[in-house]
Amino acid sequence: MELGPPGGSGPAEPGPRLRGLRGADAAASASSLSRFGAEAGCRAPAVAAVLPAGGSGERMGVPTPKQFCPILERPLISYTLQALERVSWIKDIIVAVTRENMETMKGIIQRYQHKRISLVEAGVTRHRSIFNGLKALAEDQPNCRLSKPEVVIIHDAVRPFVEEDVLLKVVTAAQEHGASGAIRPLVSTVISPSADSCLDHSLERARYRASEMPQAFLFDVIYDAYQQCSDYDLEFGTECLHLALKYSHIKAKLVEGSPDLWKVTYKRDLYAAESIIKERISQKVCVVMDTKEDEEHVGHCLEEMLKTELNHVKVTSGQDLQQIILEQCYNFVCVNVMTSDFEETQRLLNMLEESNLSILYPVVVISVHFLDYESVPLGQKMEKVMQIREFAKEAKKRNILLSGLLIYFPQLL
Amino acid sequence: MELGPPGGSGPAEPGPRLRGLRGADAAASASSLSRFGAEAGCRAPAVAAVLPAGGSGERMGVPTPKQFCPILERPLISYTLQALERVSWIKDIIVAVTRENMETMKGIIQRYQHKRISLVEAGVTRHRSIFNGLKALAEDQPNCRLSKPEVVIIHDAVRPFVEEDVLLKVVTAAQEHGASGAIRPLVSTVISPSADSCLDHSLERARYRASEMPQAFLFDVIYDAYQQCSDYDLEFGTECLHLALKYSHIKAKLVEGSPDLWKVTYKRDLYAAESIIKERISQKVCVVMDTKEDEEHVGHCLEEMLKTELNHVKVTSGQDLQQIILEQCYNFVCVNVMTSDFEETQRLLNMLEESNLSILYPVVVISVHFLDYESVPLGQKMEKVMQIREFAKEAKKRNILLSGLLIYFPQLL
Repeated sequence: MELGPPGGSGPAEPGPRLRGLRGADAAASASSLSRFGAEAGCRAPAVAAVLPAGGSGERMGVPTPKQFCPILERPLISYTLQALERVSWIKDIIVAVTRENMETMKGIIQRYQHKRISLVEAGVTRHRSIFNGLKALAEDQPNCRLSKPEVVIIHDAVRPFVEEDVLLKVVTAAQEHGASGAIRPLVSTVISPSADSCLDHSLERARYRASEMPQAFLFDVIYDAYQQCSDYDLEFGTECLHLALKYSHIKAKLVEGSPDLWKVTYKRDLYAAESIIKERISQKVCVVMDTKEDEEHVGHCLEEMLKTELNHVKVTSGQDLQQIILEQCYNFVCVNVMTSDFEETQRLLNMLEESNLSILYPVVVISVHFLDYESVPLGQKMEKVMQIREFAKEAKKRNILLSGLLIYFPQLL
Repeated sequence: MELGPPGGSGPAEPGPRLRGLRGADAAASASSLSRFGAEAGCRAPAVAAVLPAGGSGERMGVPTPKQFCPILERPLISYTLQALERVSWIKDIIVAVTRENMETMKGIIQRYQHKRISLVEAGVTRHRSIFNGLKALAEDQPNCRLSKPEVVIIHDAVRPFVEEDVLLKVVTAAQEHGASGAIRPLVSTVISPSADSCLDHSLERARYRASEMPQAFLFDVIYDAYQQCSDYDLEFGTECLHLALKYSHIKAKLVEGSPDLWKVTYKRDLYAAESIIKERISQKVCVVMDTKEDEEHVGHCLEEMLKTELNHVKVTSGQDLQQIILEQCYNFVCVNVMTSDFEETQRLLNMLEESNLSILYPVVVISVHFLDYESVPLGQKMEKVMQIREFAKEAKKRNILLSGLLIYFPQLL
């Protein structure tokens, strides 16, 4: 796991960074959601993403289109947008939604503070929606806020668990080959039925793959393909790699993806997504501390211990707390020195309150306090202990579960 | 929803019954798990099922083979066996497990009281396991407890949500065509990669289907195919329909299955399965009452009301309670008349205790009592109310949540 130095500005999520792409200094780039193009000396391509989100979700068997189905009260598409937003080198994200869902989508963007999103109207089919998204990015469009990217990622609104590393792989492969897509082994054997619903033949499973998302293309390759393609393609086709092959004669590079890339299709997939999100929440903790040297040592001890139990342990001195909260970290260990009077914890509680994070799910904060046993009188100690209980009572009203932990300072160091 | 008459012996689960197969009197048959052949005048085929359960579950990313992974503390395969056991016309169920898991499997059969199960040793591949299962059913085997069926169902241990209607469809189609299998639309486009991991071609999604389970075969068709097939088939093949086509020249009839047929493959599928099982538990209620006429009327009122909220409402006079408990009904409404002194409720509580059902998940029992307000003195009424609280205290120790409901008898009727 890659972690930034405490007090520094390490990447928000572990995984390969843009330096893997073109040798650019991406650690700095990834530390904020600033536009990729603004980074000096960076030779990575300008990248945009298009998300068709006009589907009706008829396979789900529920009236709400699946991309808007709530998971822990938050719409599925918001998780997907967050996954893309975490990747600082994706400059623009174009979402195609139907006219009737336009206001819903705007509400989601506002509520969850999504950035870099542009909305276009979805077409009646998946391909038409993607085409609309590409048109918005093409140079000849009047919408001057957007500019034509070198590489465009196409992803599904209903694949919320896409990670930066697979996005990086398809973008890199698209730069080299013109087109690229994630694939997975087939779970079931694929068969061809005859007209009378009998088996005509079955395909040898090992020779085929399931084509998944994300896919990436040199913008001109896929845009040219869409401009040439037939009404039949636009109506009945679903596969962008096929269009790139048929019209731009580009054989896409195929990249093995992780099982996480699966598409939320059926109701059971919503259940699975919810469990995965809950599991991730429980596996993610942020240790907040100021930059005093003593604490840094404590922070590292704590980090090492937590890492034996949890997947995502982040230590911060507090500068990037806003970003960490935005990325749905629900567990915090906040280290204060006794003399600082809960300053760090109070600051964190204020930020959490402003973020509305705890509306969705309770946030757990453990406020750690160091105490030099010999130099502080007992009365003062107890006063502090009672103070945290008052804080906790107030915090609980806002769904923040605050606990205090008192540590005898000299014993620890 | 099909429901048996109150006090009668209706089918344990809704859905088409064997009368749909051959006009046999299946309601009676389905009311118990008695062997199909024992039913008089029934012309339906002798049916057995083979479940390969020798997989290692490497795609799951967990050390336990997926068929043994616990869902609500109960192994996945036990749910699948239960789904097959509910179908009274399946005579024998052959499970192929590896030698190292043989004792585990025996333990599961004993703990969850599975019936009609025979174990055979799994081969190193799926096809070899199925072949071993078929051999055990073939006439020339020394194991005389089993006899050769006319039709054999092949199902996966990791598809726990198979319903009787699809089993009926594949068995009926196999009788007519020699072979049959459930299919589903493809979720992803299927592509063929070239040797250098580039796209060679993509398949038109609408022209192909995913081959799922269950499948059914005339026993001789599939057994002959397995006897002829090559080592290569046995090592690298996975598709029984393909073997029936290649060696027995039978084009299987394809039957559209429901989304429930999906295979538990990844960890996320375990999450989904758990949520589905929990949802089913919450949607299933059994109303227990004795056969007094008054109560029958009440029972029907209650049934109608409950059916507006819940999917599975069963009314019983108590004879088949054992079976209902075995089928994991966790919610009971038990109707007593005041004079009978909680007899029905006490009997139900005793049976629940014996069944160990509540080890897995809390069982909810609402004990309903009718009271002729005018004829019973207040003191006696309160005595009864206190009595249910004592029962509830005891029941709670065994994870049974008992509530009492007192209804003024004359007002209701």
